[in-house]
Amino acid sequence: MVQQYDVVGIGNAIVDVLVHSEETFLDEHGLVKGTMALVDADQAERLYASMGPGLESSGGSAANTLAAIAQLGGRAGFIGRVRNDQLGAIFAHDLRATGASYDTPPAEDGPATARCMILVTPDAQRTMCTFLGASTRLDPEDLDLSMVRRSKVLYLEGYLWDAEPAKRAFLAAAEEVRAHGGEVALSLSDPFCVDRHRDSFLDLVENHVDILFANEHEILSLYATDRFETAVDHVRGHCRLAALTRSEKGSLVLEGERTHIIDPFVLGPLVDTTGAGDSYAAGFLYGYTQGLPAERCGAIGSLCAGQVVTQMGPRSSVDLRELVLRQFSPVTRAA
Amino acid sequence: MVQQYDVVGIGNAIVDVLVHSEETFLDEHGLVKGTMALVDADQAERLYASMGPGLESSGGSAANTLAAIAQLGGRAGFIGRVRNDQLGAIFAHDLRATGASYDTPPAEDGPATARCMILVTPDAQRTMCTFLGASTRLDPEDLDLSMVRRSKVLYLEGYLWDAEPAKRAFLAAAEEVRAHGGEVALSLSDPFCVDRHRDSFLDLVENHVDILFANEHEILSLYATDRFETAVDHVRGHCRLAALTRSEKGSLVLEGERTHIIDPFVLGPLVDTTGAGDSYAAGFLYGYTQGLPAERCGAIGSLCAGQVVTQMGPRSSVDLRELVLRQFSPVTRAA
Repeated sequence: MVQQYDVVGIGNAIVDVLVHSEETFLDEHGLVKGTMALVDADQAERLYASMGPGLESSGGSAANTLAAIAQLGGRAGFIGRVRNDQLGAIFAHDLRATGASYDTPPAEDGPATARCMILVTPDAQRTMCTFLGASTRLDPEDLDLSMVRRSKVLYLEGYLWDAEPAKRAFLAAAEEVRAHGGEVALSLSDPFCVDRHRDSFLDLVENHVDILFANEHEILSLYATDRFETAVDHVRGHCRLAALTRSEKGSLVLEGERTHIIDPFVLGPLVDTTGAGDSYAAGFLYGYTQGLPAERCGAIGSLCAGQVVTQMGPRSSVDLRELVLRQFSPVTRAA
Repeated sequence: MVQQYDVVGIGNAIVDVLVHSEETFLDEHGLVKGTMALVDADQAERLYASMGPGLESSGGSAANTLAAIAQLGGRAGFIGRVRNDQLGAIFAHDLRATGASYDTPPAEDGPATARCMILVTPDAQRTMCTFLGASTRLDPEDLDLSMVRRSKVLYLEGYLWDAEPAKRAFLAAAEEVRAHGGEVALSLSDPFCVDRHRDSFLDLVENHVDILFANEHEILSLYATDRFETAVDHVRGHCRLAALTRSEKGSLVLEGERTHIIDPFVLGPLVDTTGAGDSYAAGFLYGYTQGLPAERCGAIGSLCAGQVVTQMGPRSSVDLRELVLRQFSPVTRAA
């Protein structure tokens, strides 16, 4: 069948509140730098009241990835739930404005649109506190399976595992895309998230996932090891492709027995690491669905990540398609 | 009496939506670069739907100024109306998080919190479309006159003139602060705004304003002249102090017969001019209420404006107090 979408993603539909913060603020609130903690509505309110002035940007891990794929010129769709409130309208606008399809109807009642408070410390690391709100209201019945089955790749964020209905929606979609000749990609999202759902993730990675994205902390957490090489050996047997990001050390792309070492791109001073992993996955999957070799997919991912960390917020303010075209000549792109 | 506030401001309480835009978008929508146009709810909705992805930041001209005065270490208060909605809560949070006082109760019904769509073109100029929403609901009866009369300076934005009740609130507050030994500062805000309300502004400037802020376009519009020198001669006789900003040419501070020429500060590449005038007024009024000479007030204003134009959005992401302390030694500050 003709596949209308390169990548369709399912994830939490979130608006980010980005705030500059000192290290001491993390300590005072018991937050672990670089990770994501879940908070309820009351905790979110209290935390927000104690935070400095913010900048709001549409976010959500998979949504960031799909927005970037659309900006790169890929055919992208997103499935995730907002509420019919102001932040929900902002989320929907920003995603559609990239060219991505987004048709999940907003919830008419219940909790507000999900919000993630992102504390950016002077070392440019981001630490996140998420109020999942309406995004937990994504039921399997709401899934637009016609969108899923018309996609080359279904992309899923590990964060979905924190909400039971969304997790069921995820599994239903994964079966659907594979039944129609598509593939499943998963991002492990966060080491604590992996820790909360380790058995479930291991089953996924071994039995349902074709392409895995993880950073060093997440892959170590998945295999409950402190040796990166051990984790690499494990994952190699489970997924056809695995992209393991290592911050300023670049990334590894594992393809069967081959290992591609991908250099990082440094495009300017490091400002905010929010969205680095999401952007890497976007560049990778864009290249992948264009039929490029795995090594080039990794390099495009690396370039997109290198761009987004030079600015505040998870979505690039520069034209990613132009960035890629400038970096990689059309001749090599056609390889 | 002891004055609890250095500066209290009255203005439209607005959340900005900042979007990168091409010049052609302005043409297609009949927008004049560098100015502010008013739009109704329907126009705002249509315009938003055609815009690219945005970044949200609390804004509002006078609110930006008061937020920056608080960040500089001044005692700042703001009066302006939001609705009890998500954007209203964001506005209130961001202002209070700077240390400014903000107690105007949100409207319980009526239009949503004001929103300003700001199109930032590749030349870093900003063009604004404002839906005034709840901010027009500021009546004189709502004014916290106790806050006004406890202030050294009352700061007012010209944009208030676009809403009749807010304008009456403004005049009531101006009388109140002067009756208690305070002074009145006014920003002319926008050349079209001046054009809409010229007679009213002329009366204000001649009879009610001690300190005037205007850029070149605005002061030319006020005196309906195309000669800057003519405008300078006029305004010199009307206000005790006038700060006339001229973008990259710096500014002039007129103090009686004296003219202080203030150099611009270039702190990095020009990214977005949103908030430049607001930040200039903040630096100036902070210095003024600390008892610094007019020339130094202008230089602090110039430094704050030079900072905010190196980033997206109207409120500085760097610590303005530290910036000023680094630039100006304590010895000269005490002059």
